[in-house]
Amino acid sequence: MARLPRIADLDGSSSGTGFYLCTRKERRTGQKGAFLALVLQDVSGEIGAKVFTDVEASDAQFDAGEFVAVQGRGNLFNQKLELILDKVRRVIPDDATRGFREEECIRASPRPVDEMWSELEGRIASIAHPQIRALIVRVIDRYATRFRVWPAAVTVHHDYRSGLLEHVLKIIEVVTAQAEAYGVSRDLLIAGAILHDIGKLEELSYTLATEYTTEGNLVGHITIGVGIVRDAAREIPDFPTDMLLQLEHLILSHHGSRENGSPVEPMTVEAFILAAADDLDAKIHQVRRHIADDDSDGSFTGYHKRLGRVLFKR
Amino acid sequence: MARLPRIADLDGSSSGTGFYLCTRKERRTGQKGAFLALVLQDVSGEIGAKVFTDVEASDAQFDAGEFVAVQGRGNLFNQKLELILDKVRRVIPDDATRGFREEECIRASPRPVDEMWSELEGRIASIAHPQIRALIVRVIDRYATRFRVWPAAVTVHHDYRSGLLEHVLKIIEVVTAQAEAYGVSRDLLIAGAILHDIGKLEELSYTLATEYTTEGNLVGHITIGVGIVRDAAREIPDFPTDMLLQLEHLILSHHGSRENGSPVEPMTVEAFILAAADDLDAKIHQVRRHIADDDSDGSFTGYHKRLGRVLFKR
Amino acid sequence: MARLPRIADLDGSSSGTGFYLCTRKERRTGQKGAFLALVLQDVSGEIGAKVFTDVEASDAQFDAGEFVAVQGRGNLFNQKLELILDKVRRVIPDDATRGFREEECIRASPRPVDEMWSELEGRIASIAHPQIRALIVRVIDRYATRFRVWPAAVTVHHDYRSGLLEHVLKIIEVVTAQAEAYGVSRDLLIAGAILHDIGKLEELSYTLATEYTTEGNLVGHITIGVGIVRDAAREIPDFPTDMLLQLEHLILSHHGSRENGSPVEPMTVEAFILAAADDLDAKIHQVRRHIADDDSDGSFTGYHKRLGRVLFKR
Amino acid sequence: MARLPRIADLDGSSSGTGFYLCTRKERRTGQKGAFLALVLQDVSGEIGAKVFTDVEASDAQFDAGEFVAVQGRGNLFNQKLELILDKVRRVIPDDATRGFREEECIRASPRPVDEMWSELEGRIASIAHPQIRALIVRVIDRYATRFRVWPAAVTVHHDYRSGLLEHVLKIIEVVTAQAEAYGVSRDLLIAGAILHDIGKLEELSYTLATEYTTEGNLVGHITIGVGIVRDAAREIPDFPTDMLLQLEHLILSHHGSRENGSPVEPMTVEAFILAAADDLDAKIHQVRRHIADDDSDGSFTGYHKRLGRVLFKR
Amino acid sequence: MARLPRIADLDGSSSGTGFYLCTRKERRTGQKGAFLALVLQDVSGEIGAKVFTDVEASDAQFDAGEFVAVQGRGNLFNQKLELILDKVRRVIPDDATRGFREEECIRASPRPVDEMWSELEGRIASIAHPQIRALIVRVIDRYATRFRVWPAAVTVHHDYRSGLLEHVLKIIEVVTAQAEAYGVSRDLLIAGAILHDIGKLEELSYTLATEYTTEGNLVGHITIGVGIVRDAAREIPDFPTDMLLQLEHLILSHHGSRENGSPVEPMTVEAFILAAADDLDAKIHQVRRHIADDDSDGSFTGYHKRLGRVLFKR
Amino acid sequence: MARLPRIADLDGSSSGTGFYLCTRKERRTGQKGAFLALVLQDVSGEIGAKVFTDVEASDAQFDAGEFVAVQGRGNLFNQKLELILDKVRRVIPDDATRGFREEECIRASPRPVDEMWSELEGRIASIAHPQIRALIVRVIDRYATRFRVWPAAVTVHHDYRSGLLEHVLKIIEVVTAQAEAYGVSRDLLIAGAILHDIGKLEELSYTLATEYTTEGNLVGHITIGVGIVRDAAREIPDFPTDMLLQLEHLILSHHGSRENGSPVEPMTVEAFILAAADDLDAKIHQVRRHIADDDSDGSFTGYHKRLGRVLFKR
Repeated sequence: MARLPRIADLDGSSSGTGFYLCTRKERRTGQKGAFLALVLQDVSGEIGAKVFTDVEASDAQFDAGEFVAVQGRGNLFNQKLELILDKVRRVIPDDATRGFREEECIRASPRPVDEMWSELEGRIASIAHPQIRALIVRVIDRYATRFRVWPAAVTVHHDYRSGLLEHVLKIIEVVTAQAEAYGVSRDLLIAGAILHDIGKLEELSYTLATEYTTEGNLVGHITIGVGIVRDAAREIPDFPTDMLLQLEHLILSHHGSRENGSPVEPMTVEAFILAAADDLDAKIHQVRRHIADDDSDGSFTGYHKRLGRVLFKR
Repeated sequence: MARLPRIADLDGSSSGTGFYLCTRKERRTGQKGAFLALVLQDVSGEIGAKVFTDVEASDAQFDAGEFVAVQGRGNLFNQKLELILDKVRRVIPDDATRGFREEECIRASPRPVDEMWSELEGRIASIAHPQIRALIVRVIDRYATRFRVWPAAVTVHHDYRSGLLEHVLKIIEVVTAQAEAYGVSRDLLIAGAILHDIGKLEELSYTLATEYTTEGNLVGHITIGVGIVRDAAREIPDFPTDMLLQLEHLILSHHGSRENGSPVEPMTVEAFILAAADDLDAKIHQVRRHIADDDSDGSFTGYHKRLGRVLFKR
Repeated sequence: MARLPRIADLDGSSSGTGFYLCTRKERRTGQKGAFLALVLQDVSGEIGAKVFTDVEASDAQFDAGEFVAVQGRGNLFNQKLELILDKVRRVIPDDATRGFREEECIRASPRPVDEMWSELEGRIASIAHPQIRALIVRVIDRYATRFRVWPAAVTVHHDYRSGLLEHVLKIIEVVTAQAEAYGVSRDLLIAGAILHDIGKLEELSYTLATEYTTEGNLVGHITIGVGIVRDAAREIPDFPTDMLLQLEHLILSHHGSRENGSPVEPMTVEAFILAAADDLDAKIHQVRRHIADDDSDGSFTGYHKRLGRVLFKR
Repeated sequence: MARLPRIADLDGSSSGTGFYLCTRKERRTGQKGAFLALVLQDVSGEIGAKVFTDVEASDAQFDAGEFVAVQGRGNLFNQKLELILDKVRRVIPDDATRGFREEECIRASPRPVDEMWSELEGRIASIAHPQIRALIVRVIDRYATRFRVWPAAVTVHHDYRSGLLEHVLKIIEVVTAQAEAYGVSRDLLIAGAILHDIGKLEELSYTLATEYTTEGNLVGHITIGVGIVRDAAREIPDFPTDMLLQLEHLILSHHGSRENGSPVEPMTVEAFILAAADDLDAKIHQVRRHIADDDSDGSFTGYHKRLGRVLFKR
Repeated sequence: MARLPRIADLDGSSSGTGFYLCTRKERRTGQKGAFLALVLQDVSGEIGAKVFTDVEASDAQFDAGEFVAVQGRGNLFNQKLELILDKVRRVIPDDATRGFREEECIRASPRPVDEMWSELEGRIASIAHPQIRALIVRVIDRYATRFRVWPAAVTVHHDYRSGLLEHVLKIIEVVTAQAEAYGVSRDLLIAGAILHDIGKLEELSYTLATEYTTEGNLVGHITIGVGIVRDAAREIPDFPTDMLLQLEHLILSHHGSRENGSPVEPMTVEAFILAAADDLDAKIHQVRRHIADDDSDGSFTGYHKRLGRVLFKR
Repeated sequence: MARLPRIADLDGSSSGTGFYLCTRKERRTGQKGAFLALVLQDVSGEIGAKVFTDVEASDAQFDAGEFVAVQGRGNLFNQKLELILDKVRRVIPDDATRGFREEECIRASPRPVDEMWSELEGRIASIAHPQIRALIVRVIDRYATRFRVWPAAVTVHHDYRSGLLEHVLKIIEVVTAQAEAYGVSRDLLIAGAILHDIGKLEELSYTLATEYTTEGNLVGHITIGVGIVRDAAREIPDFPTDMLLQLEHLILSHHGSRENGSPVEPMTVEAFILAAADDLDAKIHQVRRHIADDDSDGSFTGYHKRLGRVLFKR
C-alpha cells in the first residue's frame, strides 16, 4: 500500500499508510454510534483525523501522546482537510523497519537544532561586555536542555520543537544589523534577544505537547524572565546595576505596549528596536504559515483572523 | 500682622504671614524684569506663589526643598488661586517661637501615622496562615521606615506623607468585608492589600519631594514588588509554592487589566476583589480631593480631567 | 434503572432516567433522517440533548416549555457534555410518585427564596430616612411577585429563578460595609442596590424562560427603572428632590461608564461604590460558574470568552 | 469716536466704542498690579477682553451678566484676537440713543425666532397621526417659552439664543426628505426631531448664560426627555403603547452609540435616520463656525480639536 | 410535483422542484459516506443545500457556477433553513418550457436595471458645472457595462446584481436634498455619489459570483477610484484643479474615518454629507435585509453581528 | 560682545549676539504695551524669542521668513528656554564678514546632503530588476531638486532640511538587512523605501518653512505617491503589472494600519517589513530629539506627549 505524504503535502486524493504523533484523542457519539476524533502531527504540520470503523477496538489501541501507525485517506470537510482512518494502532518496535522515525513525527523547526545551537554559541561569544556575556552563559547553561527544544508559544507562531531557539536567532540577526544602523549597544540587544522570552521555559511545559504551567498562567513569562535574570546577576561579581536594569527593561517592555502585556513601555532605543523585531518576526511567521497552509485557488489566502486580513500569495 | 490660614482654607481675600515648604523655585523674566515662581505646601495642600519685588535678594534667600517664612496675599489668576508674596526668606531657628512647626508644613495623611501603624500591626497579627504572616512580618520589618512615610503616588491620589499606609489600611478594611461576603481567603486578601504597592518603596524616592527612581521607571513597582515578595519567601521555611504564586498573582494583576499596566489579569476571586478595591479607593480619593479643592459656586465641581466628568458637591 | 445525577454532576459515563424542564426543542435532518435537538435544565444547571430514535413519536410527546421524563446517557461531543436520549415523554401526574419535583427541574438560586425575602425586608426596615424607606416599600410592594422569582439577566450571570434577588442582597452586603468604610450614606446605597436593576422586572419577561420584552429592547432597564422610581416618588409626600435625583443618578450610572450603557457616569461617592459592587458581583458570579462548569483536567479552566482569560481552579 | 464693528468682524486694527453683554468678569494680579479679564458677546459671537487702566473704578462699574459700554481696540495675543479696553461701564438708559439694542448684544441664531416658530407650527400641523400630533402639541405648549430661546448646548454647537429651535428645524428638513427616500414614518421622524433634545429644557438653565442644572448633570437630557414624553402621553387618551415605545426609543438612541451616551442603540430605520441627521447637523455647525472664526491665511483653518483635523475654507 | 417557492419564501415545510444558480459545490465525507454541500441562489436570496443520495452521480451532473434543476424539501438545521435535495442536475434547454428563467435565478436589485439607468442619466444631465458633467459622462461611458450590473460589495450590503447602481441612486436622492438644506454644491455631491465607489468596478470581479481582484486587495477601491477620476480629468480641457481635488477628497474621505479605511477624513461640508449618506444607506440596507431574513417569532430579530444588536421588526 | 552659542547649546546664562532665521513674528499687547513674539532657528534647532524694547522700530526691521541679527540673553520661562532680545534687525550683506552663513541658520539634517545623495544613487544602482530601477530613476530625476532638501514632515520627526532623504536612507539600510534575513525581495524593499513618502514632495511645500499644500490636505501623501508611481510606470515599457501593484501596495500600507492612515494593511512580507522600519525610524528620531532637547536633571527626560512616556537618558 502507498505511503501517505507528509502532512504539509496531503490533499483530498491522498490515501495510504503513515506514522504520526497523536496529540489528542476524543470519543464522540454521532447519529449512528461512537467515533474517534484525533489530532495527528508530523514534522511538517498537524491535521484532524476521524475513525468511524472498529471504534471500540481502535480506541483501546493507543492513547493521546503516543505515536501511531495509520491507514486512511484525505477528505475535505467544511473547506478544511482531514484524514478518515480505516486502521490505527500504537507504533511498535518493528515499525522502525517500516520507516518509522520518531523525529519525523514531531512538528519541529525546519532548521536542525545542532546547527542553531552552534549559531547561538557564536552569538554569545561575540558579546564584548564581560559581565553581560557571563550572565547569558550562566542562564543558558542552566536552561540548555529546554532551550534546545522549547517552542516559542502554545499556538500563534513558532509553536513547535525548537521554535523558541529559531525565533531568538532570527531576532539576533535583525537587531545586530539595527544596532549597527542606529549606533546603539550590540551587547544589550543580543542579550535582550536571548533573554526576552526566557521566562517561557518556566511559563510553558513541553514534552510532546505544549501547555501553560500554573506559574505561567498566574505570573507570566515576562515577570518570570526578569526573576531568572535578576537571580543570575546576583551570582556575577560586580554586575553593574545600570546594565541589569536595562536588561530587565528590555524583557519587560518587549511586547511594546501595555495593551500587549508589557507592564512598562520601551524607554531606550534598544528597547524600541527589540520590541519591533520581536513583533515583526512573529508576524512574518504567521504570514508564512498561513500562506503555506492555504489550499484555496487564486492569489490570496483565506482570511487570517488574528491579523484581520487576507494575505498575498503571489 | 495676621497669620495666613492653612493652604486648604486660603481665598482671594487672604493676606498675612505663614510658614511653608517650598518644593519648586524658578526664576523667570517677564516684560518688566525677573520674578520668582514658587510652589509652596503645608500639611493641608499645595499652592503656586509669585514674587515680583526684591527678586534678586529674595532669590538668594532660600532654595527649593527648604522651609520658608512668607508675607503675602491670595490672588485669583485664570480661575486658580495663587499667592503673591511681598517677602520670603528661609526659616530660621527663632521661627519656632513664631509658630513654625515642620510637620505642619509637609502635606500628609489626615490620620496620625502612629495610629495607622498600630492598625497595620493588628491586621498583620490577624493573619491566620503562619507562613503568609511570617512573610508579611519580614517584608514590613525590612521596609518599616519607608512604609510609615511613603506617599502612594507622585500625583493622582494619596500623594503625600504616609499616603501609602493610609491607602493600604482602607483597602484592608474593604477587602476583609468582601472576603467574608464571598467566602474567600481573608489571609490572602490582607497580604495582597499590604503587598500590592510594596514595590513603590523602591519605585519612588521620597524625602520632601516624590520622584521616580531609575528602577521605578525602567522596571516599575509591580515587577519590583514581585521580586521583594519572592526574595522574602525564600527565607521562610516551607513557604507553599501555590500560596506564593497566588500572592505574586495578586500583585501582578492588581491594576485589573493589561491596558492599566497589569501584565496578567485577575484569575482568582481574590484577585478580582483586590483590583476592584484598589481602583475604588484611588477613585474615591480623587473625587474627594477634587471636591475639596473646588472653589466654584454651585452644586458641581469643575471638570476633572482624569475622571472625565464634573462631580456632585451637594 | 439507575437515576441520572443532577445536571451539574453528569459526566460521560452517566446513564439512567431523570426529570427535566425542556426549554428548547428543534427538529433537524441529518444524513440518516430526522433527529431532535433539545435543551434541558434542572435546579443545578442546563445541558443539550439529542434524540435519534423514534423521532416522530418522541416529537409528538411534548413541547418546549414542558417538564419531561427521559432515559439516556452522557456523551462528550466537541469537548462539551451532552445527553443522548433513548426515551423522552411529557411528565404525567404519576411521576410525582417516581420522584418528580417541579422545583427541582427549574434552574434557581442556591439560596431559598423565603430566606432571601426575609433578609431583604430586614434591609429595607434598616433604612433610616423615612421617605427613602417609604419609596422602597412602595416599589417592592408593587413588584413583590416578580422580584421574588426574577432572574438578573437572560444569560451572563444570575440568569435563573430568584437570581435578581440573590444578586441584590449580595450587593447590599458589600455596599453597607463600604458605606461604613467611606462614611457615606448607607440609606442611599441600600436603596440604590435594591433599585439599580428594578427596571429588569419590565425589561424581561420570565415564566420558565427569560426573554426581552419590547419595552426592554427599545427602552432598556436603566431608563425603565428611573421611570418606576420617579412615579413612586410622586406618591410619597414631600419626597426631597435632591434625594430623588441622587437615587435616579445611582440607577443611571450603575453600569459605570457610557461604553457599558450608562448614559451618565458616577458623580457621587455612592455612585462609584454601587457601580463597583455591581460589576464585581457579576464578575465573581461568572468566575464561579465557569469554574463549576469546567470539566477539564489541570488547575485552570478553559478560556472564558467574555472575561477573555482562563481562570484558576486551584 | 468710531463705532467698533460686530465681534465677528473685529480684527487687530479695530478701535472705537461698542455695546456688549459681559458674561464673565474676573480680577487678576499681574506683575504690575491688578487687571480685569472679561468675556464679552454680541449677536455675532464672543471675545475675551482685558482692562489694565483704572482697574478699581472699572471693576466697581458693572457685574458679569450685565450689558456694558466700552471703548477699546483689537489685539492679537497668542494668535487669538482680544479686546484691550480703555473704558468700560454698565449700560444706562440713555445708551439707547447711542445705538444700544439689547437683542444685538446677545449671541443668537441668525434666523429670526418668530419665523422659526411659524415653521415649527407648520411642521407640527403636518403630522398625520392624531395622537402623535396631540402629544407634540401638549409638550410644545408646556415648554413654548423655553423652546423659543433655548440654546442647543453649553458649547460645541448652536450654543446661543434659539439655537435649539434652529437645530430642530434643520433636522426636520433633512429627516422628512429621508422618510420619503426610505419609505418610513414621516410622523415618527418629525416627532423624534422635535423631542430628541426636549430634555435640554430641563438639563440646562439659560438666562443670559447657559449652565447645567443639578438634574441636568445627575440625570441628563436623554432620560429627562423620555420622562417628559411619558408624562405627556399619559394625558393623551388611547396613546398607542407601541408608538410611545418607538418615540422613547428615538430619544434614547439619538446619540447613535453607547459610547456617545445613548443607553440603547438604534433598532429601527427611523432611529438610524434621526441619529445620523442629528450628528451631521451638529458637525456641519461646528465646521462652519470654525471656518467663520478662523483668521489664518491660506485655504485651511487651524486644527479643530474636537473634530481632530483642519478644515477646507476654499 | 409542486413548485418550490422563491428562496425568500421557503420554510421548513416547503417541498417540490425549482431552478437555481449553484454558486458553490463541495464534496464532503461524513460518517456514512460522501455527500454534497451546495449554495444555491435565485433573484430573491440564497440558501445552503445538501445532497445525501446518489452522490457520485449527482456530483458528475453539474459544476459550481451553473444553473441547476432540483427536487427537495426545506429543513431547519441549527436554527437556519437549508434544502435537502433528492435530485439535482444541470439545467437543459428544455427547462425553459418548465419555467426556467435565467434572470430569476440570479440575486439582483429589486429595481429594474433599465429604470435605474434612466434615472442615473437624468441625474447626470442635471449637473450644472460643465466640466464636472463631462467628467462623469466620460467615466460612466467607459464603465457603463459594469456599472449596470455590478454589486456594491462582496457581502455586507447591496451584494447582488446591479446593487452598486441601486446604492448610488439612493445616495444621490438623499444628498441632493441635503445640498439644498445646507446650501452646498449639488454638483459636487451628485458627482461624489456617482464616483465614490467607482473603484469597485476594478476592485471586484463579477460574473455570477463576486470576488476581489489582485488590484482590489492590494490597492483597494478608494485609491483605484481616485486614479480613474484623475485620468479622466486629464482628458477634459481646463478641468479646474480645485474641483478635481475636492472630487478626489470626496472619494478618499467617504468612509468617514481612518479606522474605516479613509486615508483622509472629511474636511468640507460636502464630504461630511456624502460620508454620512453612504454610511446610512449601507446600514439601512443591512437592517432591512436582516429583518427580511429573520424567521424567528416575536417583535425582534436575532442578533445582528456586524451591527451588534437585535432589530425591531414591529 | 560675545557670540551666542548654537541654539542646541543655549542655556539660561547665555548672552551675546547671533544670526538666525526668523520663522514666525507676531505682535502682542501685554499689560505695559506691545511686544514681539518670535520663533528663531539655526542648523541645530529652534527657540522662542521675545522683544520688549523698541518694539515699533524692531517690528519694522524685518519680516517672518527672513534672516536676522540679534543681541540678547537666555531665559527660563515655564521650564522652557527662550531668548529675550535687546536688539534685532534684518541681516545685511556686510554680516557675512561678521560670521553670518545662511546654511548655518537653517535647521537641517546633520548629514551633508551631497554625501546622502551619493549614497542614494548607489542604492538605486544596486537594484537588480531593470524596470523597477528604471522607474525609480525616472521618479528621482523628476523630483531631485525637492528630494535633496525636503523635510520628512511638518513636525514630529525629520522636520528639517533634507530630513526626508536622511529618513529614506536609514530605512534602506535597515530593510536591506531584513530582506537578507527573511529572504524576500531586496529590490522591492529599496524601491518601497525610496517611494513610500514620495507623495510628501507634493503634500508639503517647503521653502524656509514647511506647510501642507491644498492637495496635501485634501488628498494626502499616500494617495499622491501612488499617482506619481502609476504615472511613471506608464512610461516604462513592459512594466510588469504585478510588480506595480506590489509597489503601490508598499506605499499604501506603509503606515501599518487603517487607524494610522493606511487604506490597506500589509499583505506581503515586504510590506510588513517596510511599515515596521518606517515606524521604528520615526520613533527613534523622536526619542533622540526628545533626549537631546531635555534640559532636566536626572536620568529621565520629561514626559513625551506623543509617545506617552518619559525616556531614559542614561
